[in-house]
Amino acid sequence: MSKRLQLGMAGGGEGAFIGAVHRMAAALDGRFELCCGAFSRDADNCQATGTLLGLDAKRCYSSFEAMIESELLRGAEGDDDAMQCLSIVTPNHLHVPMALAAAHAGFAVMSDKPAGISLAEVEQLAEALAESGSAYGLTHTYLGYPMVWQARHIAAQASFGPVRKVMVEYSQGWLASQLEADGNRQAEWRVDPALAGPAGGLGDIGSHAHSLTEFVTNSRMNALCASLRSHYSGRTLDDDGEIRFTLENGGTGTLISSQICAGEENNLTIRVYGTNAGLEWRQMEPNSLIERRSNGEVLVHRAGIDKPLCEQALARCRLPSGHPEGYIEAFANLYRDFAAALADKVSPAARGVPGIAEALRGMAFLEAAIESDGAGGSWRDIKPPSAGADRRGLLA
Amino acid sequence: MSKRLQLGMAGGGEGAFIGAVHRMAAALDGRFELCCGAFSRDADNCQATGTLLGLDAKRCYSSFEAMIESELLRGAEGDDDAMQCLSIVTPNHLHVPMALAAAHAGFAVMSDKPAGISLAEVEQLAEALAESGSAYGLTHTYLGYPMVWQARHIAAQASFGPVRKVMVEYSQGWLASQLEADGNRQAEWRVDPALAGPAGGLGDIGSHAHSLTEFVTNSRMNALCASLRSHYSGRTLDDDGEIRFTLENGGTGTLISSQICAGEENNLTIRVYGTNAGLEWRQMEPNSLIERRSNGEVLVHRAGIDKPLCEQALARCRLPSGHPEGYIEAFANLYRDFAAALADKVSPAARGVPGIAEALRGMAFLEAAIESDGAGGSWRDIKPPSAGADRRGLLA
Amino acid sequence: MSKRLQLGMAGGGEGAFIGAVHRMAAALDGRFELCCGAFSRDADNCQATGTLLGLDAKRCYSSFEAMIESELLRGAEGDDDAMQCLSIVTPNHLHVPMALAAAHAGFAVMSDKPAGISLAEVEQLAEALAESGSAYGLTHTYLGYPMVWQARHIAAQASFGPVRKVMVEYSQGWLASQLEADGNRQAEWRVDPALAGPAGGLGDIGSHAHSLTEFVTNSRMNALCASLRSHYSGRTLDDDGEIRFTLENGGTGTLISSQICAGEENNLTIRVYGTNAGLEWRQMEPNSLIERRSNGEVLVHRAGIDKPLCEQALARCRLPSGHPEGYIEAFANLYRDFAAALADKVSPAARGVPGIAEALRGMAFLEAAIESDGAGGSWRDIKPPSAGADRRGLLA
Amino acid sequence: MSKRLQLGMAGGGEGAFIGAVHRMAAALDGRFELCCGAFSRDADNCQATGTLLGLDAKRCYSSFEAMIESELLRGAEGDDDAMQCLSIVTPNHLHVPMALAAAHAGFAVMSDKPAGISLAEVEQLAEALAESGSAYGLTHTYLGYPMVWQARHIAAQASFGPVRKVMVEYSQGWLASQLEADGNRQAEWRVDPALAGPAGGLGDIGSHAHSLTEFVTNSRMNALCASLRSHYSGRTLDDDGEIRFTLENGGTGTLISSQICAGEENNLTIRVYGTNAGLEWRQMEPNSLIERRSNGEVLVHRAGIDKPLCEQALARCRLPSGHPEGYIEAFANLYRDFAAALADKVSPAARGVPGIAEALRGMAFLEAAIESDGAGGSWRDIKPPSAGADRRGLLA
Repeated sequence: MSKRLQLGMAGGGEGAFIGAVHRMAAALDGRFELCCGAFSRDADNCQATGTLLGLDAKRCYSSFEAMIESELLRGAEGDDDAMQCLSIVTPNHLHVPMALAAAHAGFAVMSDKPAGISLAEVEQLAEALAESGSAYGLTHTYLGYPMVWQARHIAAQASFGPVRKVMVEYSQGWLASQLEADGNRQAEWRVDPALAGPAGGLGDIGSHAHSLTEFVTNSRMNALCASLRSHYSGRTLDDDGEIRFTLENGGTGTLISSQICAGEENNLTIRVYGTNAGLEWRQMEPNSLIERRSNGEVLVHRAGIDKPLCEQALARCRLPSGHPEGYIEAFANLYRDFAAALADKVSPAARGVPGIAEALRGMAFLEAAIESDGAGGSWRDIKPPSAGADRRGLLA
Repeated sequence: MSKRLQLGMAGGGEGAFIGAVHRMAAALDGRFELCCGAFSRDADNCQATGTLLGLDAKRCYSSFEAMIESELLRGAEGDDDAMQCLSIVTPNHLHVPMALAAAHAGFAVMSDKPAGISLAEVEQLAEALAESGSAYGLTHTYLGYPMVWQARHIAAQASFGPVRKVMVEYSQGWLASQLEADGNRQAEWRVDPALAGPAGGLGDIGSHAHSLTEFVTNSRMNALCASLRSHYSGRTLDDDGEIRFTLENGGTGTLISSQICAGEENNLTIRVYGTNAGLEWRQMEPNSLIERRSNGEVLVHRAGIDKPLCEQALARCRLPSGHPEGYIEAFANLYRDFAAALADKVSPAARGVPGIAEALRGMAFLEAAIESDGAGGSWRDIKPPSAGADRRGLLA
Repeated sequence: MSKRLQLGMAGGGEGAFIGAVHRMAAALDGRFELCCGAFSRDADNCQATGTLLGLDAKRCYSSFEAMIESELLRGAEGDDDAMQCLSIVTPNHLHVPMALAAAHAGFAVMSDKPAGISLAEVEQLAEALAESGSAYGLTHTYLGYPMVWQARHIAAQASFGPVRKVMVEYSQGWLASQLEADGNRQAEWRVDPALAGPAGGLGDIGSHAHSLTEFVTNSRMNALCASLRSHYSGRTLDDDGEIRFTLENGGTGTLISSQICAGEENNLTIRVYGTNAGLEWRQMEPNSLIERRSNGEVLVHRAGIDKPLCEQALARCRLPSGHPEGYIEAFANLYRDFAAALADKVSPAARGVPGIAEALRGMAFLEAAIESDGAGGSWRDIKPPSAGADRRGLLA
Repeated sequence: MSKRLQLGMAGGGEGAFIGAVHRMAAALDGRFELCCGAFSRDADNCQATGTLLGLDAKRCYSSFEAMIESELLRGAEGDDDAMQCLSIVTPNHLHVPMALAAAHAGFAVMSDKPAGISLAEVEQLAEALAESGSAYGLTHTYLGYPMVWQARHIAAQASFGPVRKVMVEYSQGWLASQLEADGNRQAEWRVDPALAGPAGGLGDIGSHAHSLTEFVTNSRMNALCASLRSHYSGRTLDDDGEIRFTLENGGTGTLISSQICAGEENNLTIRVYGTNAGLEWRQMEPNSLIERRSNGEVLVHRAGIDKPLCEQALARCRLPSGHPEGYIEAFANLYRDFAAALADKVSPAARGVPGIAEALRGMAFLEAAIESDGAGGSWRDIKPPSAGADRRGLLA
């Protein structure tokens, strides 16, 4: 391995949640080194965050634009600790503008999800990336879990039979009360259309359920009907909803996305049924994957480098079985594999990292859902990405 | 206790499933004694079944009508082992005709579910029962579980908050293959509209999900939209479907009924979310009820006569905690409490046993679902039972 | 099936626990009919219990001796509802005297465990049974569970490898406080050596752990060292203890028996490790048996008539998988199979029911443990039953 | 935060397991930076490992002594990336010699466990540390889990009652076959007394069970009797054993340490019973802690920064509940808190990190166990550390 990739971060100041996760994920395998950040538009917060992280005060930028400009210059001067890769962990409305700027400047980008606030802007980003050749990864965390890869592997076996039915659910309880009225910063921006975009809970967590479904079934979701709602009058974005959908490869499914299930923690669960067997994976116990076969056998596939798993699942395990790995490790797998893609000069998808193809499909899903809901829950096609092999991303 | 109630049975010959369960359930507490049966129209099967059960050959009737007639006569002659109560465990199309005949003859009736094959015939039955004064119980088994009563108790607490969302699912895998083409008798009649009525899986298991939802939330389901389907061309009745619904007391929900979830055993699960907490009960581990509160506390309420449960839950436990009770015990609770209602000359509902009110609401649910599905999944009101306090049944 | 076996009961009056379980177990399959009882020496309690059970007042005997005498006479007179079989559900000190009297009188006996209060008296009983030819069953409930039979089946496979290590535990919390001082009748006799015999918790629940171990491993426990103790000064019998043991077929193990594990319900758990795999069965979730193989595979064997289980396990399932069966069903399997043994005129062991061989091995275990503990925990051989194939009971 | 602590590593070359875990743990929070290593005496392995880790080839030392000497010099020259802290991840026999050398040279030390191969050498180390003032941490990983701190917190409540009984078990299956004969490097040194010391499995994993017991009960283990054994003739160190013990604060317990439980992954489980409640924590599902109370309540305490946990548990959670954290996070907590102790110039124990006190108590435990086993399992006192408040370490 040559030296570490120099990583800058946009967003992730004090009071944020996901920024710290990105930093731990990037640090875990020693492939990245945090070199600079525009953690907050609040200069004090930005400096304080940088200080805690051991950064040079000069490289704690209170403006994203200044960071790009300054780090470009540093690179031009041949400084070998200049930023090479940018992590975008801001509210959603800034994802695409920042990714565009970074792409234009030649930086690799790891963006939090959803990719943006409209399909149109993500399509614009896709074009810009194609032009600039910049690498782009989208942190659909759950695709970093080994047992998710194992699920995909099993679902692809002939013995499993074609996928017939999917039940996927992402339920949380944190917005069961009107937290945004109590000064909770996460809640404030998550329910604000100007910052979060038109999808509320669906953008935040439903987008994960969508990407997980497509990934495990290895099939694009191509149509849906949606019912979305909010449980507080002042809350204009969805906090609860159900979607029925069809898959390109056949099969139908249900997707539940809710943040008002009082008491639920972070309950992302997917079940996939083929004609001969069913799979169940629960993110809150991520190291087990249950397979129930029509012949009555029940198997628990377990994570671990010593377990009989497919190659791709094994590549995402770090420890022998029984040493639990979790959310940060899954996230770190995405960073590690993104670094490998950069090192190997291949697309992130070639190393198993979700990217612009997932971004496009994800935004098309969100827009179709909002449109369907607005039209009384009628069926809508989900717009496929434009032709081109690279638009398949992680789908075979 | 005076002598045992003399029980006759219609259906339940060799090759059937639920008849044996009714017999064990009726026997468990010693309140009933099987005295006669019309187990099968096949006289050999009927006699063979009766012999195995230790019955007098003369009281193994190969015709239901003969049984009614003969047992009436026996009663008229003052024979104290004459049939007093009839269990109906035939395919669905015979439920109402037999119940009607029994009611007219003055027998108490325990009927398997669904109550019949149309709302109209069940309304006719309701009238007949009102006239005759015969007692009528409907074996919605799951309402016999103690933790279901505890769930209802908790959901009714002010601290739980109003019910906002329900997720209920009954999934099985036994019809994932085309079993009816392989000579499986259960499968054969379950998929035959002439015997099962217009609802397939929805009548068989979706009806349980409906009754459980209404019972735990103590609220009538008043509207729904449904999507139903079958996975084999020769199978005309639904084997898979999803329903969204609203409750009279507020709150919305989803109901999944599927028999093609390959590998699933008998996965009936209900989750109910109030504004402050959520409940989860899984029939396959029926002695635990999980309560998750918004304040972060998680409680596992456990069945057992030594546990801090509500009075109604305790009344349905037989053993100290940790001695698992299950399906037969739940079923037996219905029989035991039906016997108590007869002894006390009160309505079955007054002793916690589902009856004609549940039958009417259940059939209205099935018809609304089929109608909605036929109309492209549009919303339909569920017809409420006619006025009259006795039409509330187990609902407060 | 011919008519039901006429069952009498000794013990099981109001305030008792296990008598009601025996009655439900005997009733479940319709093979027995309760015809008389000596439920309590308190004549009022005895009559009240009998009345609740629908018995003829004349056949509610306040003396065991009177019951034997009277029912013998009734049989001699050719009365076909005379007692044929006796269930003994009294405190331990009466088990053997009653079983002896019943055997002499020619009645079949189902006795609760432990078999008695000394090995000597149980040896005397064994001789009497051999002479009289009376059938004798011992209700080691847990041997009625299907997955226990499946565990034994798997442990016997060559692929499992020889048994190397057993960890068995039966822990409860009900005696964590000094319940016997609070008027709890169960607790009172359980801690009274005059009624319970020399073994406290070890006789009550440790005896189950012993029988389960021998049954699953199909091997006699042949030596042990024990440490027993009581946690209250007035409590002279053990309420807590650990035993290390060796098995005739090889392998060592640990057995924990405790009734002071505050909060534990009825935690009977056994794990058996062969050279190539391990098994885990937990009584509180009795329908699952976990097998973990050295090659990394984990299987969950599930109960149900539709499951790929061995013949003996299937014979002890009543329902399709996912319809939970539990403690009463397991108990009922013993009664059902005892009835079958009587009908077929074979030994109970030939139908899978624990009997006098288990009684002898169980008492020898208890005495060896008490002796070892008294000798500072030194190793003691467990006395094998005298030669004779019938002394093997359920062991191959 | 000032700059990162410069970390050197002894051991952890290719083919090793725990070295990589230490590196990830040290990296996760950005408090350490790996600067050099003596990863292997095999110079090629050492260089290859260093290259993969992005280290300067000159700082990949094939001799530990050279590393110490060279890095001391580098520090003396004022080079601010000179090693400050040493992680020792070699086989056990080198732990103390290296820690001694590091302590003499003034480096802080994080050592893997067990601390050494004899109590005598660890006592010598304790003296050297007292003299030099070097900080010393011992990576008893499981003390880094938040729910372990929560367990200790609950066990200390008056409502829990005094601790009466502990059942702790660490079982694995990886040595169920004779892996050391198949060229497995981990297995080779683990079963070699020259490298592992006199304790085999007991040193490897039993030592964790011991430290966990003392930590949760906040009490020193003061006496034990042990039975240890090996299942292969060529394997001289224990691979299986049981220990009974007493605690200074009262209460008794059992400790099982086994590496021949075929199929078991990494089953570390502890249960602690007070007079009024019991606790259960299973490392393989580390984010739940079950509390069962004598009054029948069952609570599941869950990890997460949003949960009602004690301060010390919260300080060891990184994420909201339902985002699973595991083994690496627990390990990282030890590194993070060790860094904090260095920064704050307080003892590691003052920041919750096990240190020399735990090292001494752990070695005394191992020696007492081996001595007891050698003496036929008789009781032995466990030697307490010499007087001095700092010898209490994490015990109050």
